Amino acid sequence: MSTYPDDLRELIEKYLAGLRFSAIPETEGLDEAMRYSLLAGGKRIRPVLALATSRSLAVEPESMLPAAAAIELIHTYSLIHDDLPAMDDDDLRRGRATSHVVFGENVAILAGDGLFAEALRLFTEHQQGEPASVLAALRELLAAIGVDGMVGGQYVDVTQEELGAEQLRGLHALKTGRLIAASLGVVLVLAGPNEPDTIPYRRFAEELGVLFQIVDDILDVTGSDEELGKRHGSDERHGKLTYVSLFGLERARELAAESHRKAHEALAAVRGDPRDLSQITDFIYTRQS
Amino acid sequence: MSTYPDDLRELIEKYLAGLRFSAIPETEGLDEAMRYSLLAGGKRIRPVLALATSRSLAVEPESMLPAAAAIELIHTYSLIHDDLPAMDDDDLRRGRATSHVVFGENVAILAGDGLFAEALRLFTEHQQGEPASVLAALRELLAAIGVDGMVGGQYVDVTQEELGAEQLRGLHALKTGRLIAASLGVVLVLAGPNEPDTIPYRRFAEELGVLFQIVDDILDVTGSDEELGKRHGSDERHGKLTYVSLFGLERARELAAESHRKAHEALAAVRGDPRDLSQITDFIYTRQS
Repeated sequence: MSTYPDDLRELIEKYLAGLRFSAIPETEGLDEAMRYSLLAGGKRIRPVLALATSRSLAVEPESMLPAAAAIELIHTYSLIHDDLPAMDDDDLRRGRATSHVVFGENVAILAGDGLFAEALRLFTEHQQGEPASVLAALRELLAAIGVDGMVGGQYVDVTQEELGAEQLRGLHALKTGRLIAASLGVVLVLAGPNEPDTIPYRRFAEELGVLFQIVDDILDVTGSDEELGKRHGSDERHGKLTYVSLFGLERARELAAESHRKAHEALAAVRGDPRDLSQITDFIYTRQS
Repeated sequence: MSTYPDDLRELIEKYLAGLRFSAIPETEGLDEAMRYSLLAGGKRIRPVLALATSRSLAVEPESMLPAAAAIELIHTYSLIHDDLPAMDDDDLRRGRATSHVVFGENVAILAGDGLFAEALRLFTEHQQGEPASVLAALRELLAAIGVDGMVGGQYVDVTQEELGAEQLRGLHALKTGRLIAASLGVVLVLAGPNEPDTIPYRRFAEELGVLFQIVDDILDVTGSDEELGKRHGSDERHGKLTYVSLFGLERARELAAESHRKAHEALAAVRGDPRDLSQITDFIYTRQS
C-alpha cells in the first residue's frame, strides 16, 4: 500500500520540470539559478497537499497545477532567502549546495525575487477558474506570505525579538504553518465547496501546519545531514526557540503524537474523500527528512 | 504654472503614509523597516504616472490608489534589494541611509520581500474594478517585474554577462523601463478604454521609460550626492554600461532631447487630456535628482 500519493507528486514534479521563466537569452542564467533550487526534488508536500485537496473534492487535480506550482515556487524562494549568509547562512539544502554557494549572493537574492514574481505570474496567467475565484485565491495566498505570514515569521525568526516563549513559538509557526494551510486554502477557494464544508478542511490545515513544525523541530535535533539534505542542529546553533528547546525531546514527541491525532480527527469530519490527505498526514508525522 | 501634478503626488503620499502592514506587535519592527524606505519621499513618478493616466481618461484618480501604491511598494522593494552589499552596495538612497545600514542585511532583505508581498495584497484586496480587469492588470504588472522584466534587468545589471553594448543597454532598460511603462499599462487595463485608444498611450509609456533611463544615466555623472539623495558616479564605479559610457555625455544629452520629443509626439496622439502626463514628461527630462 502506498504511504504517499506518489501519482500527485509525479504530476507536480513533471509540471515543475516543464517550467521556463526566461524567454530571452540574456536572462537564461537567472532561469537556470531558479530551476537549480526548484528542481532539487523532495516530497513536494505543499503542492501535493493542494492537488490532494482538489481530488478529495472530486475536482481534477490537473486543473489546480498552476496554483500548486506557484506555492512550490514561493516555498523555494523562501528557502533561498532563508539560507543566505545574512540570514541562516546554510550551505546545504535538499542535499545540494545552496543557491548563494553556487551562484553567488547577488544571483541568489534575485533567484528568490524571480521565483516570487514568476509564481504569481503563473497563478494569474494559467490558473483556471472564475476571475473572482482566482482573485480570492490569490488574496488567501498573499495573506499567508506577507508581513503577518511567512515573511513576518522569518523576521521574528532572525531578529528573535523579546517575546514570551509561547508567543515566539506561535510566530515561528507563521513561517511554515501559514503556507501549509494556504496550500489547502487556495484550492478550497478555487474549487468552491459550500462554506460550511470548508470548516473541517481549514481545521485540518491549521493542525497540519502545527504538526509539520513540531516534526521539523524534532528532526533538526535527531536527523542526520544526509537524511535531511541540510545541516542538522541548525536551530540550536542559531539559538532558536523550538518545540524541542522549549519542552525537551520527549515532550515534543508527545505533542507531535497529539497533533497527529487531532489532524486525523479534523479530517474525519471532512465530507470529501480523505484518503490522500490522510496519507500525507501520516507522512508528515513519520518522515525522517 | 505648476510643472508637476503636485495634487496627485500629495494624494499618493497621503495614501502611502496611511498604510500599515503589521496587525500584530511581533512584526511591527518589520513594518517599521518597510515604511522607513517607503516614506523617504521623492517625486513618486510611477504612482503619479498611474494617477495621471487615470485622470487623462476622465476616471477618478482616487479609484486607482491601491494599484498606484502597489507600484511604489514594488519600486521601493527593488531599491532595497539593489542597494544590498551583495548587489550595488549603496549606503545612501533618497537622501537617507539605506535599509541594510539602518536595520541590518537580514531585515533589509525581508523588508524588500515584505513590500513585494504586501504590494500585491494591496492590489488584490483593495483595487476596485471587475475581477477580470483586476486580474488582467495584475498580469501586466507581474510580467513587468519578473524574469524578463525588472528582476531580470537587475540580474543582467549585476552579472554583466557577455553581451553586445546595444543588447546590454536594452536589458538595463528592463530594470526601470518596464515598471515605468506598467505604471500606465495597469491603469489602461483597469480603466478599460477601447483597445485602439490605448496604442498612443503605450507608445508614450515605452518612450518615457527610455527617456527616464537616459536622464538617470546622465544624472549619475553630472549630479551631486546631495541633489540625487544617493551617491553619484555609482555606475562608473561598478563599471556599468550606460548611455553616457557608451555614447559620451554630449551625445547622451542629444538622445535625451530626441526621446523627450518623441514622448511628446506620442502624447499628442492620445485622445484623453494629456496635461498631467505632459508635465511629468518635462519633469523627467529636466529633473536634477
